Amino acid sequence: MPLLYDDRLFPVDPSARAVAKRLYASVCDRPIISPHGHTNAAWFRSNDPFPNPAKLLIQPDHYVHRMLYSQGVSLENLEIGEPEIRNPRKVWQIFAKHYFLFRGTPTRLWLDYAFQELFGLTTRLDASTADLYFDTITEKLQTPEFRPRALYQRFNLELLATTDSPLDSLDDHAALIGSSWHGRVIPTFRPDAVTDPAFANFRHNLDRLGGQNGEDPSTWTGYLQSLHKERQRFKELGATATDHGHPTAQTANLSIDEAARLYAKIYSGNADTNEQELFRAQMLTEMARMSIDDGLIMQIHPGSFRNHNEQLFTRLGRDMGADIPTPTNYVNALQPLLSEFGNDTRLRVILFTLDESAYSRELAPLAGHYPSLLLGPAWWFHDSPEGMMRYREQVTETAGFYNTVGFNDDTRAFLSIPARHDVARRVDCAYLARLVSEHRLDEDEAFELAGQLTTDLVRKAYRLDRRDDAVAKAGAA
Amino acid sequence: MPLLYDDRLFPVDPSARAVAKRLYASVCDRPIISPHGHTNAAWFRSNDPFPNPAKLLIQPDHYVHRMLYSQGVSLENLEIGEPEIRNPRKVWQIFAKHYFLFRGTPTRLWLDYAFQELFGLTTRLDASTADLYFDTITEKLQTPEFRPRALYQRFNLELLATTDSPLDSLDDHAALIGSSWHGRVIPTFRPDAVTDPAFANFRHNLDRLGGQNGEDPSTWTGYLQSLHKERQRFKELGATATDHGHPTAQTANLSIDEAARLYAKIYSGNADTNEQELFRAQMLTEMARMSIDDGLIMQIHPGSFRNHNEQLFTRLGRDMGADIPTPTNYVNALQPLLSEFGNDTRLRVILFTLDESAYSRELAPLAGHYPSLLLGPAWWFHDSPEGMMRYREQVTETAGFYNTVGFNDDTRAFLSIPARHDVARRVDCAYLARLVSEHRLDEDEAFELAGQLTTDLVRKAYRLDRRDDAVAKAGAA
Amino acid sequence: MPLLYDDRLFPVDPSARAVAKRLYASVCDRPIISPHGHTNAAWFRSNDPFPNPAKLLIQPDHYVHRMLYSQGVSLENLEIGEPEIRNPRKVWQIFAKHYFLFRGTPTRLWLDYAFQELFGLTTRLDASTADLYFDTITEKLQTPEFRPRALYQRFNLELLATTDSPLDSLDDHAALIGSSWHGRVIPTFRPDAVTDPAFANFRHNLDRLGGQNGEDPSTWTGYLQSLHKERQRFKELGATATDHGHPTAQTANLSIDEAARLYAKIYSGNADTNEQELFRAQMLTEMARMSIDDGLIMQIHPGSFRNHNEQLFTRLGRDMGADIPTPTNYVNALQPLLSEFGNDTRLRVILFTLDESAYSRELAPLAGHYPSLLLGPAWWFHDSPEGMMRYREQVTETAGFYNTVGFNDDTRAFLSIPARHDVARRVDCAYLARLVSEHRLDEDEAFELAGQLTTDLVRKAYRLDRRDDAVAKAGAA
Repeated sequence: MPLLYDDRLFPVDPSARAVAKRLYASVCDRPIISPHGHTNAAWFRSNDPFPNPAKLLIQPDHYVHRMLYSQGVSLENLEIGEPEIRNPRKVWQIFAKHYFLFRGTPTRLWLDYAFQELFGLTTRLDASTADLYFDTITEKLQTPEFRPRALYQRFNLELLATTDSPLDSLDDHAALIGSSWHGRVIPTFRPDAVTDPAFANFRHNLDRLGGQNGEDPSTWTGYLQSLHKERQRFKELGATATDHGHPTAQTANLSIDEAARLYAKIYSGNADTNEQELFRAQMLTEMARMSIDDGLIMQIHPGSFRNHNEQLFTRLGRDMGADIPTPTNYVNALQPLLSEFGNDTRLRVILFTLDESAYSRELAPLAGHYPSLLLGPAWWFHDSPEGMMRYREQVTETAGFYNTVGFNDDTRAFLSIPARHDVARRVDCAYLARLVSEHRLDEDEAFELAGQLTTDLVRKAYRLDRRDDAVAKAGAA
Repeated sequence: MPLLYDDRLFPVDPSARAVAKRLYASVCDRPIISPHGHTNAAWFRSNDPFPNPAKLLIQPDHYVHRMLYSQGVSLENLEIGEPEIRNPRKVWQIFAKHYFLFRGTPTRLWLDYAFQELFGLTTRLDASTADLYFDTITEKLQTPEFRPRALYQRFNLELLATTDSPLDSLDDHAALIGSSWHGRVIPTFRPDAVTDPAFANFRHNLDRLGGQNGEDPSTWTGYLQSLHKERQRFKELGATATDHGHPTAQTANLSIDEAARLYAKIYSGNADTNEQELFRAQMLTEMARMSIDDGLIMQIHPGSFRNHNEQLFTRLGRDMGADIPTPTNYVNALQPLLSEFGNDTRLRVILFTLDESAYSRELAPLAGHYPSLLLGPAWWFHDSPEGMMRYREQVTETAGFYNTVGFNDDTRAFLSIPARHDVARRVDCAYLARLVSEHRLDEDEAFELAGQLTTDLVRKAYRLDRRDDAVAKAGAA
Repeated sequence: MPLLYDDRLFPVDPSARAVAKRLYASVCDRPIISPHGHTNAAWFRSNDPFPNPAKLLIQPDHYVHRMLYSQGVSLENLEIGEPEIRNPRKVWQIFAKHYFLFRGTPTRLWLDYAFQELFGLTTRLDASTADLYFDTITEKLQTPEFRPRALYQRFNLELLATTDSPLDSLDDHAALIGSSWHGRVIPTFRPDAVTDPAFANFRHNLDRLGGQNGEDPSTWTGYLQSLHKERQRFKELGATATDHGHPTAQTANLSIDEAARLYAKIYSGNADTNEQELFRAQMLTEMARMSIDDGLIMQIHPGSFRNHNEQLFTRLGRDMGADIPTPTNYVNALQPLLSEFGNDTRLRVILFTLDESAYSRELAPLAGHYPSLLLGPAWWFHDSPEGMMRYREQVTETAGFYNTVGFNDDTRAFLSIPARHDVARRVDCAYLARLVSEHRLDEDEAFELAGQLTTDLVRKAYRLDRRDDAVAKAGAA
C-alpha cells in the first residue's frame, strides 16, 4: 500500500475523474513558480545539508507542532524554539507516535508526499516506523542530491520568493545573484517592522531604517523617502512585490499635513491604539502610491490575531501556531485606498483572506470590478483541498478565473513545496473537471485554464518574466 | 460542438443525473413568472425593435461590463453610459475578444443560451466570430419575431414585474393595460427615492411626491398619506409587491410623536447619518404597517454598499458594477419590525441577502419561525449555479422548501430571462435529485416540489393569480 | 415503498457508497452515548408510559412546532404550552396534514425513523394516514416495550446526560442511582439561572442557591463557594460536565477585588447591561477555574438570541422556537479565559457554535492550538446532514478529527435519540468514505476513525468510563 495514490484528490465519479486526470497530466510537469513564501536565501547561498529530520520537518513547521500541542504534547519536549535540537531522534519519535493526529489534514498530504517522493518511504509513519524514517531521512540528507540547490532543481523550481524586512541586508540574495548558480531566489519587501507601530522595537526599527539609507527618520518625508529607497534596493535584487500583514485591511487617505502630524505622534511613541491603526491604514495607501511609481506588486494579508496565546508568546516568542484568524472587513476598509488609486491600471493589489465568508460577499465582487485588484489563492489554514475547492466555488462565478493569481505555497517548510503545488494543481483540475462534466465549461477551455492557473497567471500577476527570458537575460548580463 | 449541452448543470453521477433529467422534463415547459426584475414597460408599449447587439446585451448589463472593466477594459471604449452607441460593432468586438473572461461564470451560461436558443449561433464567441455574431444578431433583431412582445410570448412569460419609483408616472403600464395585448407587465413599488434620505435629490423628491397627490410633504401625516396613495395607484395597475433597497436591514418602531419629530428633521435636511439610518429603519416598519392594510408583499433587499467606486460614480453615475455587498445583520435589525408585526399572518415580508453567511445563521431560522417571513432566492452575485446550490443546502434543513418563494431573475437584460429561469430550474432539479439519490426525499415528492418551486410557490408568495384566471379576468373586464 | 432506505445519506457514487456502507456496518450496533441532552430523569424514575403521540412527539419538539408556526398554524391549536393536551387526535391531524412541510429537513428523517423502526409504520404520514398513525402509536405506547426504561434498553443507550439547574433537587437522579435499574442517567451542571443576571428571577435564584447550601449569597466568596458545593453535589450524582448558554462567548479575567465589586453591584440588582455581560464573562472564567479543580468538563453554547419573538414570549413563554442565532466571535471573546487557563491540560472546554462562519475562521484554528479546547459537534439548526458535512469539511483540515468530541443529540424528544445518532454515524461514514475514495485517508484508518467518532472520542472527551467499567463499578458498590 503506497502512501500516495495516483488519483488522489480527483473527483470520485469515474467520468469526472478521467477528465481531471487528463487535465492534470497536462500541467504536472510544469515548473514550480513560488512568488510568495518564507524559505531562507541563506540555504541556497551556503548550500549546506539540512541537519536532521526534526530540524527540517518539525521545528520550523507550525502546522505540525500546533497540532501536537493541541493534543497535549509539550513544545519543550519537541525542542521548539531551541537554536539546535539536542535529541532529534526523540523529537521524531514523539512526532511519529502522534502522526495519526494529522489524518484528514493537508499536513498529512504534504508530509506523505515528501516521505514517498523524496525519501522513497512507503510504509506509513507511526511509532513502529519512527526509527526507519529517522535513519532513512538522516542518511539521505547527507547526500549531494539533498543539498538545497539540488532540491531546488529537483523540485523544478523556476523562481522562489522569500519574505524580508527592509532592515534585512539581503546579503544572501546579493551573493546568489553574483554566483554562478542559475536558481532564482528573489526577496519580497515586507515592511511591517517599520509600518506597524505595534511591532516589537518599532521606534528602534525606524531609526535603523533612517540610519541605513541616510534619511531623517523623525520626519514624514524622511521616513517616506527611506521606504522608497529600500524598495529600490529590493527591486535591484529582483523583488517584484511587497507584502503587508496588518491586523486588518483598513486603509486611510489623509492629507499630507494630517499624515505628517500623525507620523510625528507615532514617532514620538505617544500614539494610542486608534492612532496606530490609522497609521497602518495610511501606510497601505502610501505603499500603493509607491507601487504605482515603482511597479512593485502589493500583497495584503490581513486578519490574523497574532500571538493569541500570551503565555506561550512570553515563553517561546512568535510563530508558535497561536495566530488565529478574525472576522475581516474589506469593503469599507479598502475604500479610502481604492477611491484614490483603485482605477489606476498601473497599480496591482493582491488580496488574501483568512475569513472565508468574505470570498463571495466582498472579495470576488471587489476583484470583479476594480482593475487594480486581484485575489490571492486560499491562504494558510485554507491552503488545503477543501479550502481550495471552496475558494474556487465561491470566487469564480463573480470574479472569474482571470482575477485570480494562481498558487502561493507560503511556506517555511522547503520540502513541502512540491507537495503543496501538487495539491493545488490537483484541486484546480478537479474543479475544472467538475465544470466540464456539468457542461459549464468546454474541455479545451479547461486545458487552457489548467495551464494558466499553474504558471501563466502567476507570472502575469507577479510581473515575472519566464524562465527562458530570465536565462536569456542572465546570459546577456 | 454546441454552446449548450442538454445535461448541463445536472449532477455528474449517472443515476442522480437521470433523476434530475426526469424532474427537469416535468417543469421545463412551464410558463415563466418573473415577479421581480428591472426590464422596461416602455419596450412592450412601443414594441420597437431592439437597436443592436451592443445596446441590447452589453450596455445595460453590469455583470458584463464590470468583468471587462476589472480586467482593464475602459468603460468609455465600451460606450457605457452613452445614450446611444456610436460604434456598436467596435464595442461588440471588444466584448468578443474578452469573452473568455466569463469562463466559469453564470453570465457565460446566460449569454450562450441566448446565442444558441434565440439566435441559432453554435460556434463559440471570440475575436474570430465577433462579426458573425454581430451580423447575425443585428439581422434577427430587425425581424418581427424579435420585437419585445413577440419575445415575451416566445419566452412563455406569464407575468413580468418591473421596478418603479413612486415618482414614476407608470404611463407605460397604464397604456399596456388599456391595449389589446395580453402580456402582463406589472409595476413594483420601490420607494427608496422618497424613503432614503441619502438618495440623490431626496428633498426635491419629497416635494414632488406631495405635489403629485395633493398631500403636504412637510408633515409626517401628509408624507405617510402620500405614500399610501401612491401604493394604491400602483395596486390599481397590477402591482402586488413593494421593494426596499436600504443599505442595511435595520428597522425601528418609534412612537408617532418620535417619528413625526424625526421626519421634521429629515425634511429640514439637517439630519445626521444616524438619524438618516433611523428614518430608513422606521420607514420599513411603516411600509409593513401599510402592507398589512393594502396587501402588497414587502421585499427587503439590503446589504449593498452602493457606488463604492467614487471616481467612477462621479464620472459615469449609478449602476456601473461598483455596488459591493457588506456583512448584513438580520436578527437584531429586524426585531423592531417583527416585534410589532411579525406574527401577523396578513403581512408577508420576503428577505434577500448578499451575505451568504446569514443563510443558515439568521435567515433560515427567522423564516422557519415567523409566519410573516419568507426567503427570496439567491440574489445578484449569488444568482448562479454554485450560489443557488449553497442557498438550498444552507436554507432547506431549517426553513424547508415552503418558506421560500421560487426564482426571481432580477434582470435588466431581457434576453437573459429564459436562460436565468432555466438555470434555476436545472439547479433546483439537481438539488432535488441529490436528495432523492441519498434517500432524503421520495421521487414523487421531488416531482411535486419541482413544480412548486418553478411556479406554484411564486404565485402564492407574490399573490399572483394564475394565467388562466388573469385571462378570464381580462376577458370579463 | 418504505419510509427509510438502507443506503440513506451515503454518497451517490457507487464506489464511495460501498465504502460508506462498510464503515457504517462497523459502527451501527455500537451503544449510544448521549453526553448532552434535555430528556427528563423523572421519566426513568417513574417509568410511566408516555401519554399520547401529540404529547410525546409534537408538544416538546420546537423543531416540529416552529415549522408549523412559520406556515401559519396557530400554536394554540396545537395546544403548545398547555400542561395536558385536551384533544391529542386533533393536534395530531393538524400535524399530519402539514407533514409535507418537513421535506428536506432533518426532522423528517428523525420522525420517519421513529415511525418505521419503533412503531412499524411504513406508509407516509399525511392527512389520510393521520388516524392510522395516531391509533398505532397510542396503542404501542401503552405496552411494556414502550415504557421509558424499556426504550432506553432498546435504544442501546450506554449513558444519558440531562441538563439541570443548580437549583434542581436532582431527586430523580438520586433515586435512579439508588434503584436496581442499570441505566445511567447523569445530570449536567447548567448554572445560567445563577450566573446570568438577565435570567428570570435572578436575584431570587441567588438567594435560593445560598439557602440550599448554607453560604451567604450576598458576598462574592459565599456565592463562589455555593457554586463549588453544588458542582460537588452534581459530581456525586455522576455529572462529568457543566454547560453554559450565554448570549455570547465573552470571557473576562478580573482581579478578585474587581470581581467582588462587580458581584456586589450585580447582587444589588443595579447593574447595567454592560456590567451584566461582564459578569457573565467573568463567570465563565470562574467556572474554568473550578473545572481545573474538580475535573468537570466545561461546555460553552453561545450565540443564541433567546426569545426573539416578544409577543410569543409574553403569551407562551420560553422555548417556543423563537431563539435565533447571531454572529458569534470566539477569538477576542475567549482570550481572557484562555490567557489564564488555555494551556492547562487539566482544563477541558468544549465549544459549540450556531455561526458556521466561525468553523474554519475561528474554532478550528483555536481548537487546533490550545490543549484545553475541543470542538463540540454541529449544533441545533446544524444538527442535520448538510450541517454535519459542512462541519467536518470546514473543521477537519485545521483541527483534525481528534480535537472533536463525537456526537451530541441535544434533544428533549426522547424517541428521536436513535434516529439522530444514526444520522450522525451515517454522515460521518459518508465523509470518511469520500476521503478514502479521494485517497486522502486509507480505509483501515477510516474504520478506526468511524469507531472513534462514534464512541471512543465521546467517552474520552466527557471523561466517561465504559459501560463495562460502569457495570463493574455498580456491581462493586
